[in-house]
Amino acid sequence: MLDGDGIAQAARRIAAHIRRTPVLELEAGAFGLPCRVTLKLEQLQLAGSFKPRGAFNRMLSHKIPAAGVIAASGGNHGVAVALAARRLGVPATIFVPTIASPAKLQRIRDGGAEVEVTGANYAEALAASAARAEATGALVVHAYDQPEVVLGQGTVGLEFQEQAPDLDCVLVAVGGGGLIGGVALAYQDSATRVVGVEPRLAPTLHEALAADRPVPVATSGVAADSLGAREVGGIAFEIARRRVERVALVEEEAIGAAQRALWRELRLPLEPGGAAAMAALLSGAFAAEARAHVGVVLCGANTDPGSVA
Amino acid sequence: MLDGDGIAQAARRIAAHIRRTPVLELEAGAFGLPCRVTLKLEQLQLAGSFKPRGAFNRMLSHKIPAAGVIAASGGNHGVAVALAARRLGVPATIFVPTIASPAKLQRIRDGGAEVEVTGANYAEALAASAARAEATGALVVHAYDQPEVVLGQGTVGLEFQEQAPDLDCVLVAVGGGGLIGGVALAYQDSATRVVGVEPRLAPTLHEALAADRPVPVATSGVAADSLGAREVGGIAFEIARRRVERVALVEEEAIGAAQRALWRELRLPLEPGGAAAMAALLSGAFAAEARAHVGVVLCGANTDPGSVA
Repeated sequence: MLDGDGIAQAARRIAAHIRRTPVLELEAGAFGLPCRVTLKLEQLQLAGSFKPRGAFNRMLSHKIPAAGVIAASGGNHGVAVALAARRLGVPATIFVPTIASPAKLQRIRDGGAEVEVTGANYAEALAASAARAEATGALVVHAYDQPEVVLGQGTVGLEFQEQAPDLDCVLVAVGGGGLIGGVALAYQDSATRVVGVEPRLAPTLHEALAADRPVPVATSGVAADSLGAREVGGIAFEIARRRVERVALVEEEAIGAAQRALWRELRLPLEPGGAAAMAALLSGAFAAEARAHVGVVLCGANTDPGSVA
Repeated sequence: MLDGDGIAQAARRIAAHIRRTPVLELEAGAFGLPCRVTLKLEQLQLAGSFKPRGAFNRMLSHKIPAAGVIAASGGNHGVAVALAARRLGVPATIFVPTIASPAKLQRIRDGGAEVEVTGANYAEALAASAARAEATGALVVHAYDQPEVVLGQGTVGLEFQEQAPDLDCVLVAVGGGGLIGGVALAYQDSATRVVGVEPRLAPTLHEALAADRPVPVATSGVAADSLGAREVGGIAFEIARRRVERVALVEEEAIGAAQRALWRELRLPLEPGGAAAMAALLSGAFAAEARAHVGVVLCGANTDPGSVA
């Protein structure tokens, strides 16, 4: 099931509910880069990030119990599950840590979900959500470490392959690993290299590959709200060790510079985590060869748009 | 020359210099609309608007004299001509009226162009630019009323036809008419209806169609910097009277509401003029039939991104 067929099935399952996001091939010389660059504009997805793909795939793969669905996340995953639940007409409860921003709580509530503010961090909110699910029988939609979630996120890779079949490599930001796990699976049988990108202050997959197992990592920095998982998910790790070539680490300043460059040259606002993959290319943390065709997944735009100018 | 072949030639001429902007088909029920909607994301074009298409086509159709190129515009056209001139390695002088914003002047200067601030409004700056061109022999690149400019903007329509071949109608914002003239020409032999959209406070094509000739119109409002031409161009008018079904007028509030909706649902910042066509659809100024497939050209994003949230 964790293979290309599983992704193709996920794509058919969620097709009526999500957007097939477009790609944009940049003009020669864009951003002063020597390579061809094609961007996957996944930040145009419903709810402003790739997260609804996995949420819908998880929810459409199961009969939803009367207690509905439960998720833990004060960020993009919480917003996505709330939206998917509303579209499917089932109740949702989202557990968010006390550190979550009021703006994101409001977006989750706007989606019609019940919000439980509990726990000092994501891990504590996750534990509380698991206890509640145990008690009520609600379906848990994990932010990254469930097969249906990874396969749903993998539809980003499946689409990108169809839209830009000749990529030499594809750059993907990594938090808990759901996106890169799915994308690496989608590219499993192709010649395209898959490269992860993490902030130096949130190197969960980088450290896991070094240790050859997921390890807890202290995470912080501008992208921590989307890429700051405590450790990479086990499903994504097993895929990544086989199929992710390496993880490029980017500095805080490079992320901000990429956000500003994407606004200046393309008029696209990205949140820090959503711009991290581009930051690797622009900063040289990933050094593209001349004439290579590099794919970059832009994956989230849930930020104050005024912050990118 | 003012026909589909002219547009196809323009497309080949400018292909290496511009971006083929993507389209996005929205999910069913998006924005609460009963129709299918596909957006042409032309605000992702170089320089943040469709204007480089016409500028490049004009400049690549002529040997550029030693005096370079001249244009009059304190807005998107000025920025586009400055950029095209820099890319082609020729000098550019941009005449801007004294009312132009310092931010846009800076963007024109950033493009490497010489800026002449003169005249109280666009018409006066245009007259000054014509006098200078007469004296120096520089090539004039008009903001909308030259065949090469209209044909260049028409490549937006040619691409949209290829990307979404089954549109029932396409909505296009109108200022001086270069964009809608080109798009209407591109759809000349198709069954797709072409509908113009203007702010009620800048109804240049609407008034021209009523009078059956271009007439001077007082223009104002939030979109005046991009859609506030004093009268529609003669070339665009002749095309529009044959091929534009009608012009929908949108209120100021509807434009702002469309900007906010595009940010909320798609994370896309548009400037007021760039969102006007969407405003017609969202406000009901253009009433879409259920099951119709409506194309909307989003055409400019040169605004303070914080203004759209």
